[in-house]
Amino acid sequence: MRKNKIKQMMQQGKPVINGWLQIPSTVSAEVMSHEDWDSLTIDLQHGLISYESALPMLQTISSTEITPLVRVNWNEPGQIMKILDAGSYGIICPMVNNKKEAEKFVQACLYPPDGYRSFGPVRGLIYGGSDYSKHSNDEILKLAMIETKDSLVNLDEILSVNGLDGVYIGPSDLGLALGEDPGFDKNKSTKTYSEICKILDKAKKNRIFAGIHTGSAEYALEMLELGFNYVSVGSDYRSISAHSKTVLSKIKN
Amino acid sequence: MRKNKIKQMMQQGKPVINGWLQIPSTVSAEVMSHEDWDSLTIDLQHGLISYESALPMLQTISSTEITPLVRVNWNEPGQIMKILDAGSYGIICPMVNNKKEAEKFVQACLYPPDGYRSFGPVRGLIYGGSDYSKHSNDEILKLAMIETKDSLVNLDEILSVNGLDGVYIGPSDLGLALGEDPGFDKNKSTKTYSEICKILDKAKKNRIFAGIHTGSAEYALEMLELGFNYVSVGSDYRSISAHSKTVLSKIKN
Amino acid sequence: MRKNKIKQMMQQGKPVINGWLQIPSTVSAEVMSHEDWDSLTIDLQHGLISYESALPMLQTISSTEITPLVRVNWNEPGQIMKILDAGSYGIICPMVNNKKEAEKFVQACLYPPDGYRSFGPVRGLIYGGSDYSKHSNDEILKLAMIETKDSLVNLDEILSVNGLDGVYIGPSDLGLALGEDPGFDKNKSTKTYSEICKILDKAKKNRIFAGIHTGSAEYALEMLELGFNYVSVGSDYRSISAHSKTVLSKIKN
Amino acid sequence: MRKNKIKQMMQQGKPVINGWLQIPSTVSAEVMSHEDWDSLTIDLQHGLISYESALPMLQTISSTEITPLVRVNWNEPGQIMKILDAGSYGIICPMVNNKKEAEKFVQACLYPPDGYRSFGPVRGLIYGGSDYSKHSNDEILKLAMIETKDSLVNLDEILSVNGLDGVYIGPSDLGLALGEDPGFDKNKSTKTYSEICKILDKAKKNRIFAGIHTGSAEYALEMLELGFNYVSVGSDYRSISAHSKTVLSKIKN
Amino acid sequence: MRKNKIKQMMQQGKPVINGWLQIPSTVSAEVMSHEDWDSLTIDLQHGLISYESALPMLQTISSTEITPLVRVNWNEPGQIMKILDAGSYGIICPMVNNKKEAEKFVQACLYPPDGYRSFGPVRGLIYGGSDYSKHSNDEILKLAMIETKDSLVNLDEILSVNGLDGVYIGPSDLGLALGEDPGFDKNKSTKTYSEICKILDKAKKNRIFAGIHTGSAEYALEMLELGFNYVSVGSDYRSISAHSKTVLSKIKN
Amino acid sequence: MRKNKIKQMMQQGKPVINGWLQIPSTVSAEVMSHEDWDSLTIDLQHGLISYESALPMLQTISSTEITPLVRVNWNEPGQIMKILDAGSYGIICPMVNNKKEAEKFVQACLYPPDGYRSFGPVRGLIYGGSDYSKHSNDEILKLAMIETKDSLVNLDEILSVNGLDGVYIGPSDLGLALGEDPGFDKNKSTKTYSEICKILDKAKKNRIFAGIHTGSAEYALEMLELGFNYVSVGSDYRSISAHSKTVLSKIKN
Repeated sequence: MRKNKIKQMMQQGKPVINGWLQIPSTVSAEVMSHEDWDSLTIDLQHGLISYESALPMLQTISSTEITPLVRVNWNEPGQIMKILDAGSYGIICPMVNNKKEAEKFVQACLYPPDGYRSFGPVRGLIYGGSDYSKHSNDEILKLAMIETKDSLVNLDEILSVNGLDGVYIGPSDLGLALGEDPGFDKNKSTKTYSEICKILDKAKKNRIFAGIHTGSAEYALEMLELGFNYVSVGSDYRSISAHSKTVLSKIKN
Repeated sequence: MRKNKIKQMMQQGKPVINGWLQIPSTVSAEVMSHEDWDSLTIDLQHGLISYESALPMLQTISSTEITPLVRVNWNEPGQIMKILDAGSYGIICPMVNNKKEAEKFVQACLYPPDGYRSFGPVRGLIYGGSDYSKHSNDEILKLAMIETKDSLVNLDEILSVNGLDGVYIGPSDLGLALGEDPGFDKNKSTKTYSEICKILDKAKKNRIFAGIHTGSAEYALEMLELGFNYVSVGSDYRSISAHSKTVLSKIKN
Repeated sequence: MRKNKIKQMMQQGKPVINGWLQIPSTVSAEVMSHEDWDSLTIDLQHGLISYESALPMLQTISSTEITPLVRVNWNEPGQIMKILDAGSYGIICPMVNNKKEAEKFVQACLYPPDGYRSFGPVRGLIYGGSDYSKHSNDEILKLAMIETKDSLVNLDEILSVNGLDGVYIGPSDLGLALGEDPGFDKNKSTKTYSEICKILDKAKKNRIFAGIHTGSAEYALEMLELGFNYVSVGSDYRSISAHSKTVLSKIKN
Repeated sequence: MRKNKIKQMMQQGKPVINGWLQIPSTVSAEVMSHEDWDSLTIDLQHGLISYESALPMLQTISSTEITPLVRVNWNEPGQIMKILDAGSYGIICPMVNNKKEAEKFVQACLYPPDGYRSFGPVRGLIYGGSDYSKHSNDEILKLAMIETKDSLVNLDEILSVNGLDGVYIGPSDLGLALGEDPGFDKNKSTKTYSEICKILDKAKKNRIFAGIHTGSAEYALEMLELGFNYVSVGSDYRSISAHSKTVLSKIKN
Repeated sequence: MRKNKIKQMMQQGKPVINGWLQIPSTVSAEVMSHEDWDSLTIDLQHGLISYESALPMLQTISSTEITPLVRVNWNEPGQIMKILDAGSYGIICPMVNNKKEAEKFVQACLYPPDGYRSFGPVRGLIYGGSDYSKHSNDEILKLAMIETKDSLVNLDEILSVNGLDGVYIGPSDLGLALGEDPGFDKNKSTKTYSEICKILDKAKKNRIFAGIHTGSAEYALEMLELGFNYVSVGSDYRSISAHSKTVLSKIKN
Repeated sequence: MRKNKIKQMMQQGKPVINGWLQIPSTVSAEVMSHEDWDSLTIDLQHGLISYESALPMLQTISSTEITPLVRVNWNEPGQIMKILDAGSYGIICPMVNNKKEAEKFVQACLYPPDGYRSFGPVRGLIYGGSDYSKHSNDEILKLAMIETKDSLVNLDEILSVNGLDGVYIGPSDLGLALGEDPGFDKNKSTKTYSEICKILDKAKKNRIFAGIHTGSAEYALEMLELGFNYVSVGSDYRSISAHSKTVLSKIKN
């Protein structure tokens, strides 16, 4: 089975830079997949993408060495299994609150006896290889988002769930959960920043990967230096907006 | 943030006439959005529409002043949050049976601390404006359908749920629930009609909006006179059928 | 091969009532195909439909006995042959100006030695039957639009083109060509009306079918009484608009 | 209402040969629907198909006498009801573990008072007929998959659920559940084969239909001889692969 | 009829900054339409977009005040008329070589007696208004690309064609035509630059608008200072690539 | 620039086995691209595919080493250039009748000064590499179909057109042109077979490649032995039909 490239990188202590896809198009996905991202995450939650678009996007990304991940829009086994069958090499699951939810999520990604994923890996076989059924439990990344109040309370039990490969921090939701503003790139004086540090610390102690969503290259670098294993920066959607603003301000001012 | 026009109308005691979209096409949606409807509801339940089509329909409707609503196909947080992020200004949730379900629904539409909606309002920002995160809890309409046996039993507790803006009656399901036939525009001798009146009455007492699905302009008027705040009449789908029948009967008879 | 039902009807002197599809959706097409139209024309010219949508619309219409026709957006062989392969049982070709253009159109619909249609009838075989290649030259309706100034000048030579089954009048373009306003349902005092009568008369003399686009059941009836073999009335698109206006004026006034 | 052809066949003791659709295209669906299958199942679970594609596939299949079924990707009422409204004449539900889940599934297919399906059968009316609401509870096939460890333990209670028409065996998942390899066409020495026989036996005792997924005509025949009422063989997806391999090995060797 | 905003701006001597759409998605189109572009051009030639995607993109752009233009992929009347009916407020036509071709193009955009556009403006009516047929000949921008060897030879006759509103320079094709490299933002020492200046000069003499495609804000500014009326800069597609490169180089270096 | 693998193979005297895509789906395309075909041709003529579907199919095929070709539906420069920009590595052009048409076709594939292809190779750069503009005139295969009466008469002049890489024989159209039946795999007693041999012979004399469409592995082998450089066999569409027939006849007989 094709190795999960970013899992290997993280195991070797290399930082992973993850691109973010919010536009439902194989064209934007292909442009992104020819830049130097290590992985690309198709966002079925806050991206404007559903399965129908995600499938050809996964097919398009497959022409490069970039590892394809998907953030599902909810902790729902049918959706998780379906997108794994479509060839995703990892799942980011939002709003995981406690151990039970974490297990429900992780085990949806695992074939028995480790979990309850239903067998029929169609594109998994094409993208991963004919021995997919033997190795997919290992290769597929299972990443739980830590972003709700409950998840902070239950952090230890979540992190100890068997098969969970890592956590992913959504700073906007985490901010709201803590009574602060949403938004990326929290500064050090915020409660959210403190909690981010605690989550990172606990993830390290549990020897699982820690990742975070950021809004700029500068903050992404800061997070990597802090010890995060993987970071996301912006998105295809935000690139268009940001680049347009830059161009137009140069011309119009 | 852009104001929810029909919420304002209802608060001012003005009747809201809602159009209904069952065809998965931006073209039919655009035709409807250039007629004099106050709001348009994209029906993800009994319409033949899913997210992939609903998104460009919402984008198309955005070129007019008509308020866009969506009926989801189930009380499922992932679906509700995703369509809110796509810019819907209200959710009609089917088959709400009791307080717990009503809260699950309403809180899926609300950012913490009022609810558990996940943050990332993409098109919400584009359609609503840059201060979406501050005001969306207020502007988004949360409308629960009253149409099952259980919902009649638990009506009081449903109506008292914090943040619920109104109820919407599905006369077909309500009829079936009461052992009568499905179908719109119940006459006064039916049990369903009696229950409709009771629901309306209780909604008024709880100071929340009441709406109902109808099959004709005449019945819609009757319902408005009865005190309903908003009514839906037919659909794009039914318009094609009705108009064809009219034309063909004139020619062929 | 499945018989062309409306060709048979016209040969037997029966009026054909044609429905018009401008919305790119299988759903609106299916609703129309379950009303009592004799044929349905997918409009690739002034409809908002291209091949990608027309294909599943043709597949959907195939579940009924209604004859499927297509109006192409230009007299282009590639487009004409492709939509015939998709199972259309007739082509309405716009803007035919003279004999050469009429022959170019008609022969694009005919296999050699009668024309130059390329062989590969895929859905033609599925919809028409396995002997499609033997009979399709006969069954497929070739209908040229008469609507430009030049076409009036060259009418006789156009009507005499071998294999042409009929003409179709576009009253809006014809009106513009004659220096009058566009629009359907011309009254008798207009130049356009006079030309319509002449075209009808000449079609009859050439023993080919004559059809016209109309905007109302009343005018369609008038045209049938005048001797037209087939008439189109409104469209799915216009039905939605017309029906909405009716409903809304009843409620809002 | 249009009769469920394969339900009738099975009641008459005739074997039903079911084709399997994994490709999201009306074209592959149409090719399959013009071969001699008795029914076709659109696979929303391990097929690469979602609602958006399934809808026009159902519309396309409707032009033939083949009974359309759908396998949903999870036991989720919103999804089940929506695809029934789209005209599916039966649901195969994966991963049914116990009585409660079986009831949740079956009752999602039934209008009150037998179940809790919401009323609004749109395409059901078009495909089934105007008396759909009266007969659909009977005509729609409700088929539960038996493929998990728990389902074996709870088999008796599952089979006794009111309204359940039959079971469907997924040999791959069943194999994994029993600690054996996934894959179709188990040989007689396997535990999976023994369990298949037991399930078949119990289904017969409960007078409900039994079906199984197979990978070859030979094994399908064997299963029919064993007493199964319906069998699926391969899929459109696998046909392309298998046929290509045959052709290429002939040429390249 | 809605005024053509950028035509007015150019008449008033204001520079027009045009954005460029190459991604077939309403989402990227919507992001672009909420930045400060004066107009947006959907590129059906070297963009990865066809009619099926362009239609909802036009519908989406319509929610803003940005003027929508389309570059067609060839000088074909069917394609030009169809996209005008879809609501485009201007056409950029590639590869115009001589007077005859220029007239063929321009007159495809004009209703008789000025041209031969076929009547049926569907979305034109919705976007432009109910008096579209009266004013569209004036409002629609007809822009011919000057980029081939022949077009340089025949420049005077092209520029004098009645109804032509302006020219648009494709520097890549022009470069190739002159035996230089393709690419944007030619420096002053190139033959291409000299020709660009000549074209601009002649356009001014013929009192029609001149525009040019550029690859950077800096060059766009230079072209505006040179006297160009409108400039395009980059594209949505290039924004994603450029922004990703910037972010990744900051992090990885 | 990525080398054209099948051009290299043919230059080295290796037979090329070409698969044929008629289904508009990335899924069928992906299945085909993981079988041992040397090249795959997306058929925009008699396949049920248009640009909108062809684009993601090309993106999907790009994940393998299989060379992607496209058959356009007509000798139209706009269509040819657009699909080359989408990354096709060769064009099969139908119905080429004479030298002028052959030159029109070939030069549409070539940048100046060899032809008149417009510059803007978007996906060409992604699939081919950043030096695409330098080498694409060489790498892109230009293949003219010989299948009409006129093409037989004008064969010598067609074959001598500069830049033409090869011919492709459509036996069905050729059969019709010669007054015989359409269909593949002509036997030796037919006029069509004789002409096929003559075309092959002349292609060899002009040192260009010769290919032919076949309906079976056996006939494909025969054609390769006869000296053809490349052969197509069946299609994805026909595979589904053929494989279903095999399976069903085994079970039902």
